[in-house]
Amino acid sequence: MKLLTAVATCAACIVIASPASAQFQKPDDAIAYRQGAMNVMGEHFGRIGAMVNNKAPFDAKLAAENAAVVAFMSKLPFAGFIEGTEKGHDTKAKPAIWKEADKFKAAATKMQEDVAKLNTVAQGGNMDEIKAAFGEAGKSCKACHDEYRAK
Amino acid sequence: MKLLTAVATCAACIVIASPASAQFQKPDDAIAYRQGAMNVMGEHFGRIGAMVNNKAPFDAKLAAENAAVVAFMSKLPFAGFIEGTEKGHDTKAKPAIWKEADKFKAAATKMQEDVAKLNTVAQGGNMDEIKAAFGEAGKSCKACHDEYRAK
Repeated sequence: MKLLTAVATCAACIVIASPASAQFQKPDDAIAYRQGAMNVMGEHFGRIGAMVNNKAPFDAKLAAENAAVVAFMSKLPFAGFIEGTEKGHDTKAKPAIWKEADKFKAAATKMQEDVAKLNTVAQGGNMDEIKAAFGEAGKSCKACHDEYRAK
Repeated sequence: MKLLTAVATCAACIVIASPASAQFQKPDDAIAYRQGAMNVMGEHFGRIGAMVNNKAPFDAKLAAENAAVVAFMSKLPFAGFIEGTEKGHDTKAKPAIWKEADKFKAAATKMQEDVAKLNTVAQGGNMDEIKAAFGEAGKSCKACHDEYRAK
């Protein structure tokens, strides 16, 4: 498996914190947007996972770069879960997202906090800390997917 | 059209500059990734477009936030144009991407430079400057799409 140079990122990106903008031309655009953002986030998260699970050599710089992308991306997809996007564009989003919006938002916030922590430790380069933080963030991802994403 | 609060970003994000990492499990993952990243970039770029084309009220903060997302996203998709991803996952990528890789890379770099400039002026908040930089960046997007993306 090749480990090429990842995106050069900035520590300041850790602080991105407020909710993303919602302004879509049509419902399917919102769905494609959230799926795209989730996909990009998942790819970079998975690259850290490969390292902490010994499926790829540990590379502190690469872990830091990927974590920064994950932290940045984590803010984006939720803007796409707007009313009227419960169906369409092959969405796996469950209706519960809109029925219990506060709970969904809390789960999203938890994930964002966890990946922000992952990013913070990843910038430090300590593999054990990254592994622990990755595990916590992974739990948040899974909890939300289990609850709100159809198989 | 509602203009909700967009992602809070950081001026330091302007400087992200090196190529993105390529490390995909399978070719379709790379295609979905690049499409996802392009989608997210396009959404935020389009929001600036709506403002500079008087289809949405000009909001300097929103323009700055969207431009920062565009600049960040511009670094990501090209990692997905790896060998073996000429077909699959409904890609519209033309074979020329791989036949004239240097030319494609130059076009990608031109776009990245143009959106970096857009981001720089967007952080300043001057509508006329944003409009001019948006126009230049839009030309780069279009040139590359005309050349390398099937209709």
